[in-house]
Amino acid sequence: MKVIKVQTEKPYEVLVARGFLGQVGRLICTKIDPCRVCIVTDDNVSKLYGAQVENALKDAGYDPCTYVFPHGEASKNMQTLAELLSCLADHHLSRSDLIVALGGGVTGDIAGFAASIYMRGIRYVQLPTTLLAAVDASVGGKTAIDLPQGKNLVGAFWQPSMVLCDADTLLTLPPEQVSCGLAEAIKYGVLWDRALFDQLAAGGYELEEVIARCVELKAGIVQQDERDTGKRQMLNLGHTVGHAIEQCSGLSVLHGQAVAIGTAVVASAAEKLGLAKQGTCAEILQAYHKLGLADKCGIEAEKLAEVALNDKKRLGGEITLVIPRAVGDCVLYKLKAEMLEGFIRIGLE
Amino acid sequence: MKVIKVQTEKPYEVLVARGFLGQVGRLICTKIDPCRVCIVTDDNVSKLYGAQVENALKDAGYDPCTYVFPHGEASKNMQTLAELLSCLADHHLSRSDLIVALGGGVTGDIAGFAASIYMRGIRYVQLPTTLLAAVDASVGGKTAIDLPQGKNLVGAFWQPSMVLCDADTLLTLPPEQVSCGLAEAIKYGVLWDRALFDQLAAGGYELEEVIARCVELKAGIVQQDERDTGKRQMLNLGHTVGHAIEQCSGLSVLHGQAVAIGTAVVASAAEKLGLAKQGTCAEILQAYHKLGLADKCGIEAEKLAEVALNDKKRLGGEITLVIPRAVGDCVLYKLKAEMLEGFIRIGLE
Repeated sequence: MKVIKVQTEKPYEVLVARGFLGQVGRLICTKIDPCRVCIVTDDNVSKLYGAQVENALKDAGYDPCTYVFPHGEASKNMQTLAELLSCLADHHLSRSDLIVALGGGVTGDIAGFAASIYMRGIRYVQLPTTLLAAVDASVGGKTAIDLPQGKNLVGAFWQPSMVLCDADTLLTLPPEQVSCGLAEAIKYGVLWDRALFDQLAAGGYELEEVIARCVELKAGIVQQDERDTGKRQMLNLGHTVGHAIEQCSGLSVLHGQAVAIGTAVVASAAEKLGLAKQGTCAEILQAYHKLGLADKCGIEAEKLAEVALNDKKRLGGEITLVIPRAVGDCVLYKLKAEMLEGFIRIGLE
Repeated sequence: MKVIKVQTEKPYEVLVARGFLGQVGRLICTKIDPCRVCIVTDDNVSKLYGAQVENALKDAGYDPCTYVFPHGEASKNMQTLAELLSCLADHHLSRSDLIVALGGGVTGDIAGFAASIYMRGIRYVQLPTTLLAAVDASVGGKTAIDLPQGKNLVGAFWQPSMVLCDADTLLTLPPEQVSCGLAEAIKYGVLWDRALFDQLAAGGYELEEVIARCVELKAGIVQQDERDTGKRQMLNLGHTVGHAIEQCSGLSVLHGQAVAIGTAVVASAAEKLGLAKQGTCAEILQAYHKLGLADKCGIEAEKLAEVALNDKKRLGGEITLVIPRAVGDCVLYKLKAEMLEGFIRIGLE
């Protein structure tokens, strides 16, 4: 088992191993005494692992109930949040009780956000069941839901008490979901780790090791900037354009796929504008192609820029992008809001 | 002008004076550069002060919009929150923009909570226009909304950037609202300040001074326990039973009135059980009567206990009450959850 310590204001551990889902109750018990638990999960994951996790919690002395919502990003809204909060109250969860988020990024986001505001904050444990959630969403305490006006517009910084990542659960995903997760892993390579990038681009990696390395890289940056006011913005590589793609597609383009296209657009524009080393974009595209990810979205620059400027990353009249100067070397790049459309247009050409 | 410094993790100041509502823009400007502002207020307060505050903000260079909701505790729910958050997004408020809460406790609660979660937290300034909000709700950063299952079940700890209390605005309230605010001021006297209690019980006080003293007392306790895990629970004097009364009455009993009855019930039970000095309850009741506050609610102990046990103050199988041993001397008192009904019954007799 790999253990990564995340030294945020409230420190916690990320455990990565295979086949420990049946023992999660026992593992949680090492940190949190038996109490009421609400397992939050979607209809897909519920069928696969719901009963196993519920039994594991019961066996360790917890008193679990389950809240199931329809899978998919479209559920990450105020209505699901209201239902979940009512469910917690109906089951009389108190300040000292616990939420367990069993699922992918959407589940972690909504369960973590509910934990942050129910009774002004209760504890939660992440059990990521997608690669994307394992390497990204489950670490760092950024939780959120979407508004009709944009993705992740409402949320909180709220660190989990533990993250338990059973790599076996990630293998039951459909291939396009696995590709999306690997795209996020590639992001960490592009940001800070040439060796990780090369390993992923070549194939033949060991999943547990890739997850542990990504979590390590993310923990390193989160510790330096827990509230996302500086360095942590680096993690938004590909996300400004990516979020806009997700939204313009009516959420039909998956998050990891959208971020991959977003990264390609930014890398392409950066290279054409002389901000990135020649060949950087081609290298990144090659890695994405190997995973079977698309590099085009068919949405116009004007529309993407309009939606992106409604995104939370806008600060006054400026927008901060993350630009790869080369694989493993990225910088923050401030752009005037009115320049974004032109920048995206160059990237899309 | 009286200035009280609140030394929370993010420190801020409470300014108390008369007739400065027309200069709030200029005052806010000393701490926060001009930006987009959303004024959050209810339909009553909007008519009285909305235009004045909007103009004061414009004059100081801010770009204000206004969100108005129907007055009353019944609006403090998920639906109003969702509407307010959408309004912020529609007006393109960014992370560096501002919410101004203009109104009473309900407005401060919902505006402060929205500020805490919009884009994972933006700044807000409180302009309390009720005595209750001025002496209590606007200080300390506890924000919340209600669920159908109970009051304040969802919220956050989020400190304001400033609190500007224009005592003149408090005088336009109907008398029963002023009484409710004074009941909250009496609470501070019962908790920690015999002299304040005597002054209020005798009448003939100076409103600005009473507000400043209450804010000072509250700031003192909030600084010691920002996240309400220990000493700050003292501020819940009368609130466990009070919240239950509000809820059982369908919110027809005002908050201050409900807390007054709740305090009387607890004081009465404490005295009968030998926990409080003889005569304590009579002293408190006399002060309330002088303000024209009722001391009975006509709701049964069984119902009150049931609702109170759904309240967030429950921790596992125990509930923490605040008990006056005498005026100016209170203690926290842990009660087994199943004992609450009996305790309330004794208090009601």
